[in-house]
Amino acid sequence: MPKSPTGNDRVREDDSSRVTSETDLVQTYLASLTEGAPGAFGLTDDAALIAAQPGTDFVFSTDPIIADVHFFSDDQPRDVAWKALAVNVSDIAAKGAKPVAYLMNLAFPEAPRRVWMAEFARGLAEAQAEFGCRLIGGDTDHTPGPLSIGITMIGTLPSGTFVQRHGAQPGDHIFVTGTIGDAALGLALRRSPTLFQDVLTEGERDFLIGRYLRPGPRFALGEALRNHATAALDISDGFLKDLTRLAGTAGIALKFSAIPLSLPVRKALSTDRRVADAILGGGDYELLAAVPSSKAAAFRESARRLGIEIHESGVLGGSRTALFGADGTEIEPRELGYDHFSS
Amino acid sequence: MPKSPTGNDRVREDDSSRVTSETDLVQTYLASLTEGAPGAFGLTDDAALIAAQPGTDFVFSTDPIIADVHFFSDDQPRDVAWKALAVNVSDIAAKGAKPVAYLMNLAFPEAPRRVWMAEFARGLAEAQAEFGCRLIGGDTDHTPGPLSIGITMIGTLPSGTFVQRHGAQPGDHIFVTGTIGDAALGLALRRSPTLFQDVLTEGERDFLIGRYLRPGPRFALGEALRNHATAALDISDGFLKDLTRLAGTAGIALKFSAIPLSLPVRKALSTDRRVADAILGGGDYELLAAVPSSKAAAFRESARRLGIEIHESGVLGGSRTALFGADGTEIEPRELGYDHFSS
Repeated sequence: MPKSPTGNDRVREDDSSRVTSETDLVQTYLASLTEGAPGAFGLTDDAALIAAQPGTDFVFSTDPIIADVHFFSDDQPRDVAWKALAVNVSDIAAKGAKPVAYLMNLAFPEAPRRVWMAEFARGLAEAQAEFGCRLIGGDTDHTPGPLSIGITMIGTLPSGTFVQRHGAQPGDHIFVTGTIGDAALGLALRRSPTLFQDVLTEGERDFLIGRYLRPGPRFALGEALRNHATAALDISDGFLKDLTRLAGTAGIALKFSAIPLSLPVRKALSTDRRVADAILGGGDYELLAAVPSSKAAAFRESARRLGIEIHESGVLGGSRTALFGADGTEIEPRELGYDHFSS
Repeated sequence: MPKSPTGNDRVREDDSSRVTSETDLVQTYLASLTEGAPGAFGLTDDAALIAAQPGTDFVFSTDPIIADVHFFSDDQPRDVAWKALAVNVSDIAAKGAKPVAYLMNLAFPEAPRRVWMAEFARGLAEAQAEFGCRLIGGDTDHTPGPLSIGITMIGTLPSGTFVQRHGAQPGDHIFVTGTIGDAALGLALRRSPTLFQDVLTEGERDFLIGRYLRPGPRFALGEALRNHATAALDISDGFLKDLTRLAGTAGIALKFSAIPLSLPVRKALSTDRRVADAILGGGDYELLAAVPSSKAAAFRESARRLGIEIHESGVLGGSRTALFGADGTEIEPRELGYDHFSS
């Protein structure tokens, strides 16, 4: 395992050395991440180029992550790098697009340590290989604030096949990938390591924390979404908040039991009902899709073929979107998902 | 003139009210900036779309600006907005591309005041109208750090016409747009308002500060660059630093007198030779282009037709790039342009 640059291990002397210039930082650690992308010009130009691809539309998303807002400043740099790309790939994936390239702005409070940059670049390389995209440009800055990583992800899809957030119709089936709440509970465990110590095994706790640190965007579902979904989005701000957005005026009355949960989350929930709030807390980076009745079976089959676990939560058609407990009372979480500016 | 939200004027009560949510911020102030860009989906989706345009390549640049690093936190929000777009348009312009769309990440230390957001959005609208681009997406965050505005600019050009930074050849003529050093001296005046009080008129001081606050990227020169230049870049880090990059192995020995200077800068320089350092300080957002001898006249004529002032500084061909004073001694500025991480 790489040594954490912020850990308390005694570090070798060269572990504490720092990059000496922007050129050093860019050419030593980042330039190799552009391999295979001729339009990146090895990060020696001020702009990047993507050549025309007939019949191909471009999809863009941007979602920065900031230390101590979206990740902990002592998270492993490899995990931070992975998350920076993953949250953006997730947005692209929900539109049915394939990630191809990205630009990255790095703002550092001080010149980063070499060991940190090396591990950060390694995390980017891992994520690039997994998601199929390449670094093509960016910028580095000094900031009086916390470390900030601003990714703009560029995806492609066949012309005219973009899957919008809006467009879900009454009668559409609601599908959700994977399981919900793992990341939010993982975040709680990252904050309070002794939480659910008697309930969850070490492996279960690692699974949940892993889901928080390394979200796995569902970009492989792209073709299935393009072929079958009337609308889709990724669950970043919370299941109920994002479901409400997807349903729009169609509305849906959903039982809490219709939310797919992992075994560790079920175990935690059975001992503490407040876990229900956490489950709606966001950071899942799973996808929600609305699929017409006539295409539901084909969508299910596509997902199965792709090896992506999907769950049908219900059918749209109601005056509004609401969530109900087993006893029929409406669940109103204390915080309905995440908003940076609401009080 | 709009009231500065950070000024000492007595403000109306509603001047101090703040945006209440991300949706409020985005829909009240930013959504209208997407007009004419259907792929922005009125900022209601998580991703933006740009449809395929046969024969058109895409060019990308990203250059965030951070309060108290790249601008002063009490600068007028209209000027801040202008600069955020202008510095990115400048990168695109140097490649011969036309700015068409941008994504914007806003990170605020606290929910912004309504009056600040309204003026900021007005500045974006002014800049969009001038540069011909539209907002298509982005993200807003809370940050424990300073206000940060991260723009990713998207430009277009006819396939295969991207003008690289590298490629300048011995014998190429070096052209520079506008005048150099205005912005750096404007920054000095912004910091020390009494500087050159006896030398420069009020109008001259305003001109210099304006050049710092509102850089005017030379995107109109695009076609001329595409048709005639072997290489080009914009001068952001400093004239000598960027000239060295453009010249590459070709090299050029330049006299200081070959740098085009405005009258106010000449006046300041004649009373204080240290102004020479400031002139090389960067932030000009003018363009440097290398043009073969055979095309120099046509390039000059194109620029004249477009109404863009250009100056020929010299011809490439030397062992290295260096700058010399009138007495023949080499000028080595105390700081050779800007680097965020060098000590």
